[in-house]
Order: sequence, then C-alpha cells, then structure tokens
Amino acid sequence: MKQYQEMTSEELSQELAALKVQYKKYQALGLSLDMSRGKPCQEQLDLSMGMMDVLDSASDLTCEDGTDCRNYGQLTGIQEARELLGDMMENNPKDIIIYGNSSLNVMFDTISRAWTHGVMGNTPWCKLPEVKFLCPVPGYDRHFAITEFFGIEMIPVPMTPTGPDMDMVETLVHEDSAIKGIWCVPKYSNPQGISYSDETVRRFARLQPAAPDFRIFWDNAYGMHHLYDHKQDYLIEILAECKRAGNPDLVYKFSSTSKITFPGSGIAAVATSPNNMEDFISYLRKQTIGHDKVNQLRHVRFFGDIHGIVEHMRKHAEIIRPKFETVENILERDLNGLGVGNWTTPLGGYFIMFDSLPGCAKDIVARAKKAGVTMTNAGATWPYGKDPQDSNIRIAPTYPSLQDLTTAMEIFSLCVRISSCKKILADRAS
Amino acid sequence: MKQYQEMTSEELSQELAALKVQYKKYQALGLSLDMSRGKPCQEQLDLSMGMMDVLDSASDLTCEDGTDCRNYGQLTGIQEARELLGDMMENNPKDIIIYGNSSLNVMFDTISRAWTHGVMGNTPWCKLPEVKFLCPVPGYDRHFAITEFFGIEMIPVPMTPTGPDMDMVETLVHEDSAIKGIWCVPKYSNPQGISYSDETVRRFARLQPAAPDFRIFWDNAYGMHHLYDHKQDYLIEILAECKRAGNPDLVYKFSSTSKITFPGSGIAAVATSPNNMEDFISYLRKQTIGHDKVNQLRHVRFFGDIHGIVEHMRKHAEIIRPKFETVENILERDLNGLGVGNWTTPLGGYFIMFDSLPGCAKDIVARAKKAGVTMTNAGATWPYGKDPQDSNIRIAPTYPSLQDLTTAMEIFSLCVRISSCKKILADRAS
Repeated sequence: MKQYQEMTSEELSQELAALKVQYKKYQALGLSLDMSRGKPCQEQLDLSMGMMDVLDSASDLTCEDGTDCRNYGQLTGIQEARELLGDMMENNPKDIIIYGNSSLNVMFDTISRAWTHGVMGNTPWCKLPEVKFLCPVPGYDRHFAITEFFGIEMIPVPMTPTGPDMDMVETLVHEDSAIKGIWCVPKYSNPQGISYSDETVRRFARLQPAAPDFRIFWDNAYGMHHLYDHKQDYLIEILAECKRAGNPDLVYKFSSTSKITFPGSGIAAVATSPNNMEDFISYLRKQTIGHDKVNQLRHVRFFGDIHGIVEHMRKHAEIIRPKFETVENILERDLNGLGVGNWTTPLGGYFIMFDSLPGCAKDIVARAKKAGVTMTNAGATWPYGKDPQDSNIRIAPTYPSLQDLTTAMEIFSLCVRISSCKKILADRAS
Repeated sequence: MKQYQEMTSEELSQELAALKVQYKKYQALGLSLDMSRGKPCQEQLDLSMGMMDVLDSASDLTCEDGTDCRNYGQLTGIQEARELLGDMMENNPKDIIIYGNSSLNVMFDTISRAWTHGVMGNTPWCKLPEVKFLCPVPGYDRHFAITEFFGIEMIPVPMTPTGPDMDMVETLVHEDSAIKGIWCVPKYSNPQGISYSDETVRRFARLQPAAPDFRIFWDNAYGMHHLYDHKQDYLIEILAECKRAGNPDLVYKFSSTSKITFPGSGIAAVATSPNNMEDFISYLRKQTIGHDKVNQLRHVRFFGDIHGIVEHMRKHAEIIRPKFETVENILERDLNGLGVGNWTTPLGGYFIMFDSLPGCAKDIVARAKKAGVTMTNAGATWPYGKDPQDSNIRIAPTYPSLQDLTTAMEIFSLCVRISSCKKILADRAS
C-alpha cells in the first residue's frame, strides 16, 4: 500500500470508508479492553504467590543481627533487605534506605521535604519566588503530577534515542538557578522503553547546575525488567559515576519491587550519597517509626539473593515478551509503509511509545475508546497533559490477555489509520 | 515511714546513705533493662503469628468486589478493611481511608499537606507569618517532634484527670487564629493513661476556633487497648459528636493496628468528614498508587470481624495487665506515704505516668540509667523536651519481662527516693 500522504484525496476517501466499515464491526462487539496503565497481568502476579508461603506461624522472623521484624525499629530497613536491594540497584547497602510499598511515595515525599525544609541546608523551595523542573518528554505522567501539585514550573526537554537532549539539559541547569531537578526514567524509559547511553549518563554525572540544591531524580523503575535473555540494555550506574565526577550529592536514585513481586505490596528503596541520606533520615525520623520489616523479610526469604530476582524476572519476561511482540507485529503489519506513525521496539520495561501524525493522538485515543479500548490519555506523557504536537500515545501491553491485546491493537491500528486519513484530508481541504 | 519532707536533715542523710548502699548493689549487677518506649513484648508479638498463615500460595487474594489485592488500585483501601476498621473506630466505612503501616506517618503527612497546600482551600501554612498548635502536657513526644520539625509554635495546655484544660483550649482557639490544631490522645492517653470525659469530648466538638482551618488531631491509638474486661473507660465518638454539634469538619481521627498485630506491619486509618476526606484524597492521589492491600486483606482474614479484634486484645491484656500491676505495686510499696511523687493507675493503654518532686525527673532518669535501667528521657513528654517543673516521667511497662520489670521498678523507686532526699536536703541548705 502507498503512503497515505501520496494517495489522492479520492483514494484516501475510499480507504476511509473501508476502514469505517471495519471499525463499526468492532464497535458492535461491545468490547471493554484496558491498555491504559502499566499493570502486570494475573499470570505475572501468580509468579509471586510463593511469597505467601515463605513466612508462616512457625517462622523465625528474626534478622541475622537479632532484629525482631515484628516489632518497632530499624528506620532504614533490615540489613538483609538493604543487601538484596543493593545488589539489585548496584549500590552499596550502606547507601540504601528501604521504604514502604511505593517508590512514587518516596519521590513525592522528597519533593515535599525540599518544599518545606530545603535540600541539605538550602532555602526551602516554598520560600523561593519560583521553582522549576526539567521534564524529559514524552515522560511519566505521575512524575509530572507531583511537580504540578507543588506548583513547580515544568520545562519540557526533548527525549532522543540516547536519553534527554543533554545539550539543552546542560545549558538550562547551568544558567538557571531556579531549576531544582529533573525527572529521569533512565532504563527502559516510560514511555519510550529506551535506555540512556553511556555518554548521557556521564554527562548527567558531570552537570554543573547553578543551583546547589539541584538534584537528578533517577527513577530506575525498570532496572531488572528485561524482555530478552541476551539482548539487554546496559545502564551505567549513576551514583558511582557521580562520585567519580566529584558530584557525589547530585542524584537521588529510586527503585522498588512493585513490578517484580506485587504492585502495592512490594518494597521501595532509595540509594544516594551520605550527605543526601542524612537529609532523608532527618525527615524520616519524624515521619515514621519505621517501615514494614515483615514484608522486607518476606522479600529476602522469597528471593534469597539477586540471582533469585533475575530468575524471577525471566519468568515475567516469558509472559510479557509475546505481548510486546504482538503489539509490534500488528503495528508493523497494519501501519508499516503508510507514513502514519512511528513506534519504539524496546528491549524491556512496560511500554511501547507510538507517535502519530501531528494532531491525531487525541482523536485516535477517543476513537479507540468508543470501540471499547481504553488507552492512556493522549497528552498524559507531557507536563500539564498538553502534548503540543498532539501525537504521542503510550501503549501498555502487559495487562490484557494475548487475545484481548491482539483485538485491542487491531482496533488501535484501525483508529490510527482512520484519524490519519481524516487529518490528511482535512489538511488538504483547509 | 515518715514523709521525707517531715524528716530532719539528719534522718534524711541517714536514709540517703542507706539507699546509696542498695543502689550500689544494683549497679554491681551490670543490668541492661529498657523501659523507654511503648513496645509490645515478644509474647504479645507471638499472639499475631497466625497472621502469617491466613494467606498462602493457594489463597484467593480477591476481595468481595472483585479487587485483586495483588495489583494496583483501591486508593482508599479495600472495602473489607474499611468495614473492619470502621467497627474498630466506631465510624462509617465510607468515612475511612486505610493507609500504610503507620498512623504517625499519616499525621506527619497531614501537617505537611497543610503546610504546603493548606486545609480545605485555606492559605498554606508555609505562607503564614506564624502557626501555633496546642499541646496538652504531658503528652506524646512524637507528636511534638512533628510540629517542632515544621517550626510550629507549641503552646502547652495542662492535662487534668478529665482531659486537657478545656477552659484554656476554648479561650485560646477562639481568640487566636494562628492556632491551627491540637494534639490529642483521647483514650488511655500517652503518658497518663487517662481518658477524656464526656464533657471534654462534647466541649471539643463545640469549639469555635478563630481559624477556619483549625483541626483537632484525634490520635485514638489505644481505643481497643483495655487492661480489664469490665473496668473500661468509655470515650464518646468524636466524629459523630462534631456532626451533631454542626462542626463536621473539625476533627481528623487517626488509628492503627500497630499495637494490635505487629508494630510496623499493621494498617493505619483516618476517619473524617467528606470535606476533609476530599482534601486527604487530593493529596493521596498524587502521593501513591495505593497502599499494601495484601496486608489489609491479611488483617481482615485474621480477625474476621470486630469480635476477633476484641478477643485478640483480651489476650494482650492478659500479658500486660500483670506488668502494669507490678509497676503500681512496687511504687505503692516503696514510695507510698513518702511524699516523693504521684502516679497514675490507668485502665488501658501503654503507659503509667509518674510525677516526682519538682526538679528531680532528670536526675532520677540519669540515676536509673547508671544502674542499667533506660527510661524515656525526662522532658520528652513536653514540647521541645522541656518540662518546666522537671518532674514528669513516662513509664512503659510492656516490653521487659515481669522479672526484669520488677528489678527495673525497684531500681526506679530507689532512684526516686535518692533524688528526693538529695533535693530536699539541697533545698534546705540553700
């Protein structure tokens, strides 16, 4: 088939009419398929049911150092969990704090603490006339929601195939002391699924921000989430790189087991420099008596060590790899050569990113919705929900069954084609 | 024996010499006994080991409404947990949000939210020239630590046997719009172990604060923590009372299962009005994707219903009642009639409060420490750690074994007597 742009308007109108017939058939099925969020599917959750057996009423819930996990104490987490997550995050256990069930919550609290108390002795952000954050785009809507909630001005920075546009990042943070942070999902990024190149990480570690309280919010949510055994992205460990670059305090690194064991019942962690850790702990000490150590111990006993996590992630990959491949195959089959969009083919993570013709994303998502397929809202990948090109759509393939996913993607492709036809025709008419 | 004040100085010096001999004997034992915090003992923790068996790999972790507890979702908690904690807190499940493992954390976040975003549309506290809190004294150190952390000025309000001095509370909140809240532990209070009278609760519900964003922080931490089956304090339910008084938004009520199941691995909850709940949820929605629902379900399956909690608390009481009685018996035996202090005899909670002669508390605690007995720091029960009378000491009897507790209390009484002798002698000499 020809590229849509190369078709005559008559050809396009014919194509559109044919597509609409197909669309109506799907609509008649009364489907309800959800591809909106990065949620594991039931088979993935089943992988962790063994978690429910590792502790029972006969278990000794005592740590190696004698800590009774059932009682108060151990603000920064039990040593065994710090070691396990240390191996997972490639950081020294002493640089790690284990939190509750949500790394998003820790990021929120970190912004909130900077807002009320400032970063390492600097002015609390609530006392400043303006606070800005760099937001690589497209990016993660829940990150942007936090900075928006605090009235922080968000500056979009374009993503490239190797990470954020580092020329722009370097210039902006060097010139503007109101810029206090940047949101990063450095590995299998949300929504692209790309990983930052070695050069990008090295340039991050060597940033020279005007603000002494500028921090990189390094949300390594998908560090273990490879789709393939051998084809894997590699990410340079940022904390060590910052230390080598003489910028030890530049980064807050976040991680969790949310999409490893159970979302909502995992354990979250921060790795950072001793100075930053002091900041975190000064806050934590007032905020809580401690996190759920029984759940920390449950994770440690379930996995044993990092190899246990790797083996476990292999099982996740076996379940979700066919889903990623299905999405890619259908997009390839139905859209390739039409010039109506581009998409990523990540080696890990939870998302595939689709870029439509400018001005089509909202229409595609609305159209899919009317045929029973819920996608992430168009615009969600941009600060304030505003995608200036109206072209970016996040595809979350993990939750639906393979069969539902196939149907959903066929509907999606159809919607892309319909919207594209209409857009090109409308552009020609105007 | 005579009251110390009625002894001649010579008699007192003889008494002191004899006490010091005893003290040295205890010191020689090289003890290490901890009565500093309200921590359950091992036997209490053992009561909840059945929690580890209610969910296993064959369990269906689905709620009645179809929610899979293993996945994301249900920001305000699973319905079953809201119902269970609704019965526990005497509130409608729809007025309840289930949180993570720590109600202290929820209180911290509540202050933090008021600081950054304000209460129900009012000016964020960080934008105000001054923010004040009323602190019934003696009170709970971790409450005071939160308000201190935010730079909130703390105004002590004396506790009476029926609760805070309500004349003072009414006058202050009515006159000063900078007063934004009050810390309350209304049942089996920390550290007194007393419960607010009906009149006190009714006066709280009818407060007419100058500040529209004044809130009562009602930390009902010990609502279920009776020591006796029939001799129990009764507390009027504040939320219903506020509603009746036409002040529905006046109170935030906090509770948790921390000292019911496992401290650090329980579930926390807030009950409040629909307007306040909207505030809480607007924040929560940005802060997390949800709390640990597997643990919520674990609690529901373990207890079944409120009767399960009541039966469970009866077992706790059987373990800790003898400890409270031991403390009271030793104080009675060793100090009664000496005029060297007063103490409470609560029907529940986690603490007994001791009031020494003015100017003796720090010395008593330091002296006990040197004989191997760690008490809560003197002063901890006051804002900024400053007890103006230097007389208040919190006794936490639950954690040590009965035998250790007996020794610790004998040492404590001895230290009270030594400090009192010295103080009276010094006063006479000056």
